[in-house]
Amino acid sequence: MRIVLDAMGGDRAPQVVIDGAVQAAREYGVEILLVGREDVVRAELTRYDTAGLSLPIVHASQVIEMEEHPAAAVKVKPDSSMVVGMEAIKRGEAQAFVSAGNSGGVMAAALLRLGRLRGIKRPALAAIFPFPSGPCLVLDVGANTDCKPEWLLQFGIMGSVYMERVLGVTRPRVGLLSNGEEETKGSIVVQEAHQLLKGSDLRFIGNVEGKDVPTGMADVVVSDGFAGNVVVKLAEGVAKMLLGLIREEIQRHPLTMLGGLLAKPAFEGVRTRLDYAEHGGAPLLGVDGVVIIGHGRSNARAIKNAVRVAVQAVEGGMLEAIKSGITEVKG
Amino acid sequence: MRIVLDAMGGDRAPQVVIDGAVQAAREYGVEILLVGREDVVRAELTRYDTAGLSLPIVHASQVIEMEEHPAAAVKVKPDSSMVVGMEAIKRGEAQAFVSAGNSGGVMAAALLRLGRLRGIKRPALAAIFPFPSGPCLVLDVGANTDCKPEWLLQFGIMGSVYMERVLGVTRPRVGLLSNGEEETKGSIVVQEAHQLLKGSDLRFIGNVEGKDVPTGMADVVVSDGFAGNVVVKLAEGVAKMLLGLIREEIQRHPLTMLGGLLAKPAFEGVRTRLDYAEHGGAPLLGVDGVVIIGHGRSNARAIKNAVRVAVQAVEGGMLEAIKSGITEVKG
Repeated sequence: MRIVLDAMGGDRAPQVVIDGAVQAAREYGVEILLVGREDVVRAELTRYDTAGLSLPIVHASQVIEMEEHPAAAVKVKPDSSMVVGMEAIKRGEAQAFVSAGNSGGVMAAALLRLGRLRGIKRPALAAIFPFPSGPCLVLDVGANTDCKPEWLLQFGIMGSVYMERVLGVTRPRVGLLSNGEEETKGSIVVQEAHQLLKGSDLRFIGNVEGKDVPTGMADVVVSDGFAGNVVVKLAEGVAKMLLGLIREEIQRHPLTMLGGLLAKPAFEGVRTRLDYAEHGGAPLLGVDGVVIIGHGRSNARAIKNAVRVAVQAVEGGMLEAIKSGITEVKG
Repeated sequence: MRIVLDAMGGDRAPQVVIDGAVQAAREYGVEILLVGREDVVRAELTRYDTAGLSLPIVHASQVIEMEEHPAAAVKVKPDSSMVVGMEAIKRGEAQAFVSAGNSGGVMAAALLRLGRLRGIKRPALAAIFPFPSGPCLVLDVGANTDCKPEWLLQFGIMGSVYMERVLGVTRPRVGLLSNGEEETKGSIVVQEAHQLLKGSDLRFIGNVEGKDVPTGMADVVVSDGFAGNVVVKLAEGVAKMLLGLIREEIQRHPLTMLGGLLAKPAFEGVRTRLDYAEHGGAPLLGVDGVVIIGHGRSNARAIKNAVRVAVQAVEGGMLEAIKSGITEVKG
């Protein structure tokens, strides 16, 4: 199997990306096409023992930066690692694309070069929460702010397929984000989407409220990109605020400081269990190719795991499963 | 000053409500009209020393329960404590209404008996976050799921007036909840609301993302009732999940357990600093009366503080300030 890895994507690219690529090539036995500035990537590669690994470099002279406007960047940078990487997928030279770069850029490049899967109205950007109870996929988290009910149904189908085929969750529970449990709650669009999801073959568990999301009640949380984005960023913000506050309170007194010191392994345990790096990346679903987007702050382990997720998506036949899932609902 | 207190509202009513009422009457020197089943309220009152306090009982034979459908309940229970209490406000016998009961019921009763303030398109239900950096008002949190841009502007005006007149925040910073900082981000409604807020006299700081909310970047966060509800409930859920996970990890090993024991005052400090009871309740804004809704799980201190908030709203001239704020924008 061949995976395209955007060597220039991520806050600490290309260093951690190459590090992760070497680890992934060794661990999963796949060929990894490193797309980026050849000299930079080659220089970085010399720091590792790559004997027996297949890590060819595909030169791309341009880089789409984190703060660039996605659609515009993709157009003015046709030789960027993202666009060049997508072209390799399009030509069938590789089976999946992985990047920890500008997620809007990845999406724009994917739409431009791969296009949508047949029958898909709108691709969705997903995020994965590593909750104590298991991974939870939230989608859309920013690609589509104003959604139609049918798009939300498709997000549910794509999310369910992903959790089943890629993360191995049997019959994933699909919930619809709303402001109340009852099916009469929610915006007009959400109420209509509720009926569509209810009538589908998905294992739809009904509306889920904000408080239900972290309990892991649903494996897939369907939302428009507005509320989904708020969910992902708020969860991050609340956790940061709370941990900061605990740290502050612990440092107020020598005894609590000692307590904090002794309890340190517990806090590290919490960090490990909530570590996004474990799941590597989240998919861009609905485009005609396997596209995995890692967190901008990805470390080498996150990159390695993002490659693993891409491998699992290819092996699990994710694209075909989405296509047939969409067709069944329509038929 | 006279405050109406719904003696039957809240998970632990009437016990904690009467307890809080006695404390509030003593501490703030106000008269508190206890609306509810006379025999029950009277029996409860005998447990306290109420010498010198003014705590008259207004009989109401019915109670709107937590799980009842608000609009329906208000209609079939015209002698409920909520409806009877609102009528006392309407007749000018008291200046504010406080309840820790079914918030939808309070809103339905307020709309039925008090109606909207002149010029207000839709009343908004607010929630207050006790962040380390200070209180943050989020509105709407569930009264209006599908909103028009103009309603969001009015939420901003009402929220700003509340923070200034009631909680004493000078020139409150008003943020608009969105899925990105740029003014081009957000749903179509949010983008239009951005322009309205930008053109207003409010201290508008632009869009705020989910991650910004807990930092206290904004004193007022404007949102439709769908996303606002998700924000309030998700924040609660994430905090609960995280604290549960910390507890679990601490209990894994004798040493971390000892650490947890020593650090206990720090955790209690965190709890105190994030205690909703400190702020007592959040306002229903846009109805023609001061209405404060406490958390269903209110304890006596929360009830007492909800009365304090009501007193501050009356003394701060909140209603008049909202009226003139709305007129200025229109004129």
